[in-house]
Amino acid sequence: MSVHEHIEAINRFSETEANTGYSRPTFSESWRGARDYVIDEAARAGAEHMIDAAGNVHIRSSEIGWEAPVWLSGSHVDSVPSGGKYDGVMGVAVPLEILRRRPELPLEVVIFAEEEGTTFGLGLLGSRLWTGALPADRVFDLRNAHGETYAAAGASLGVDPDRLSHPTNWTDRLDPARYLGMVEVHPEQGLSLWRAGRAISAVERINGRRQFELAIRGQANHAGSTGMNDRRDALTGAAELVLEIEALGRRLNEELPYSVLTTGIINARPNAANVIPGAVDLSVEIRSQDSALLDRGEQDICTIATERCAARSLEITVTRSETVTPSPLDAGIARALQHAATDGGHDIEIVPSGALHDAAIVAPHLPTAMIFVASRDGISHNPEEYSRPEDIDTAREVLERMIATNPAGVVAAR
Amino acid sequence: MSVHEHIEAINRFSETEANTGYSRPTFSESWRGARDYVIDEAARAGAEHMIDAAGNVHIRSSEIGWEAPVWLSGSHVDSVPSGGKYDGVMGVAVPLEILRRRPELPLEVVIFAEEEGTTFGLGLLGSRLWTGALPADRVFDLRNAHGETYAAAGASLGVDPDRLSHPTNWTDRLDPARYLGMVEVHPEQGLSLWRAGRAISAVERINGRRQFELAIRGQANHAGSTGMNDRRDALTGAAELVLEIEALGRRLNEELPYSVLTTGIINARPNAANVIPGAVDLSVEIRSQDSALLDRGEQDICTIATERCAARSLEITVTRSETVTPSPLDAGIARALQHAATDGGHDIEIVPSGALHDAAIVAPHLPTAMIFVASRDGISHNPEEYSRPEDIDTAREVLERMIATNPAGVVAAR
Repeated sequence: MSVHEHIEAINRFSETEANTGYSRPTFSESWRGARDYVIDEAARAGAEHMIDAAGNVHIRSSEIGWEAPVWLSGSHVDSVPSGGKYDGVMGVAVPLEILRRRPELPLEVVIFAEEEGTTFGLGLLGSRLWTGALPADRVFDLRNAHGETYAAAGASLGVDPDRLSHPTNWTDRLDPARYLGMVEVHPEQGLSLWRAGRAISAVERINGRRQFELAIRGQANHAGSTGMNDRRDALTGAAELVLEIEALGRRLNEELPYSVLTTGIINARPNAANVIPGAVDLSVEIRSQDSALLDRGEQDICTIATERCAARSLEITVTRSETVTPSPLDAGIARALQHAATDGGHDIEIVPSGALHDAAIVAPHLPTAMIFVASRDGISHNPEEYSRPEDIDTAREVLERMIATNPAGVVAAR
Repeated sequence: MSVHEHIEAINRFSETEANTGYSRPTFSESWRGARDYVIDEAARAGAEHMIDAAGNVHIRSSEIGWEAPVWLSGSHVDSVPSGGKYDGVMGVAVPLEILRRRPELPLEVVIFAEEEGTTFGLGLLGSRLWTGALPADRVFDLRNAHGETYAAAGASLGVDPDRLSHPTNWTDRLDPARYLGMVEVHPEQGLSLWRAGRAISAVERINGRRQFELAIRGQANHAGSTGMNDRRDALTGAAELVLEIEALGRRLNEELPYSVLTTGIINARPNAANVIPGAVDLSVEIRSQDSALLDRGEQDICTIATERCAARSLEITVTRSETVTPSPLDAGIARALQHAATDGGHDIEIVPSGALHDAAIVAPHLPTAMIFVASRDGISHNPEEYSRPEDIDTAREVLERMIATNPAGVVAAR
């Protein structure tokens, strides 16, 4: 087996038809299949697994056992709807293969549940519950498209609300004493590596993210008999906001690279050709490595929304639905990864991450870094997502060497 | 019974919950209930009904019979999703009540099927099939949200594709020899009458309409790691088009009043907060009384769409999905309605219609006019739609008097 074969095998579990991308909603049958594949492959190599109260899976070789402090490496197997093959999956397949090749290394593989947030509406759920960043009772209000709560949908897969509130098992809550640090391997999901013709990079900081829900309310009316100047059209108002938010993103990105703003969701009502839209809901998110810039961006979003809608006699409410603070990662581990790469003849750079990852949630508790792998044309969250098998192998080789040469952790980390 | 009571009774048939407007998709159970109410009330007053091959209902008093040339008056009982109480329903309830009060008058009540176009995706379907404006075989390709064709969904309600292609019954295809003319009563769906404090107006022309589907294709991608300048965001492109289309509507309305452009439908994919939208579909419609202006408007829509999308490296296709030419109505009937109003002490104006109605489809075949009834705040296609019962009674009184004083049609009409 190779890392590439693990990735192909995991992607056989998907809710989608052929050629329409890969969908593995958290706790779905396809998610369970992907998870069980990883557990079974690890077991075949002599490893054991534990499931924590949030539904995350932890795997260590029997040779190492659960007491020794080890390097944590993993990611997720849930996907956005019709997503790609590599996002999350690569970050599980790489340490799985290291565990199989070198069971003597101090390593724990982790599969975090619900990283994407497209199943239960809030991203990084598994890692947040494990680190205590999210109150345990949220498992009773977050629901999937079938209306099931996280607690109910995950009950048969290990989610245990009682143990989340009152951990009885040490795996239920991150215990820093049992880890040397964390390294997450992930597709870059950007253009830098692919353009430069490089295989991988080391990541030493991660952007924060704030998400907002904008509810724009006008007046639904007949599209034929309502004059152009008598309208309170919620969609033309929303269109102005979409463009202003894009322009704000460009300004903030010039100020500080890797800052981005996106309108990802738009829903209009009644959404009929001959009716002026009376209501439009938008999702807006801003990401940046700088908290002060996030503050200013949030202020600007609110000001733009209020002013533009007032000018059109539209009502608007802006609700902040999610907050993730920027995460400085561990410069010592990033340098250790760079050394391991150099030793293997690879020249790698140290960069920031525009995307958010479980590593950002773990970083406040453990020395943490990431390895990015080149993404073809920077395409991600899309069936066209692709990373070269040889680049993924390079990531595996560098991580394996870093762990082998730092079996007691990285000195002077943090 | 009064017209108002008929309107209330018909609205008891609706798929919606209380206080969320009224939904009667064509050929649904609620549509069938509303239709049967009208047939039953007419039968109680000694009238007979026939159903044509398109599923439209025709009702005449037995006293008049099916041979004599009569005035045609009617509208529709299908609704937009969560629509109001009056649109269409008023135009059926008024002649129903005239038929009940004065069975000796030369009158046929008609209920046209699928006027709104929100059930089968193409408006004015029943009147178009009845007049031969639409090829009969379209009943096999137009489908509702359940995937049923118009032919299949309407089979138990009288739709008969064989008779549509080869009419065997004279009601299957409009026979001008059997009619004196048509008058449709309808809410104004605009602000003019309500603002002026008037009850009704007479309508002597109807705007044409062209509808388009715009398919914008960019690249779905990760919202965190894709830089602001590396995006092919289909939603920001769509937002530009929505605003340009609004601006074009304002320009054309200044040139020729009652010209309007509307984007009513927007659907984005994958429609997730953390993914840059890769595809957006829009519906655009333009309405005007002038065909040359419609031609120029269509050209402008295509030019705007092509140029704006090219500038953003987006792909776009524009498909014209519907065409209704502007309809001059019958000035003679409009004047006869004005005279009937004056005789009753009502002062009414003759105006154009921005909205499209079944009357526009009938107008090329029969002398046709309309009566508009004041709409509160011009609100329509909305649960808030409202017309005063006394204004609707005025429409009934004027139409009844016009028919009574012109039992052989309006001289010099057309």
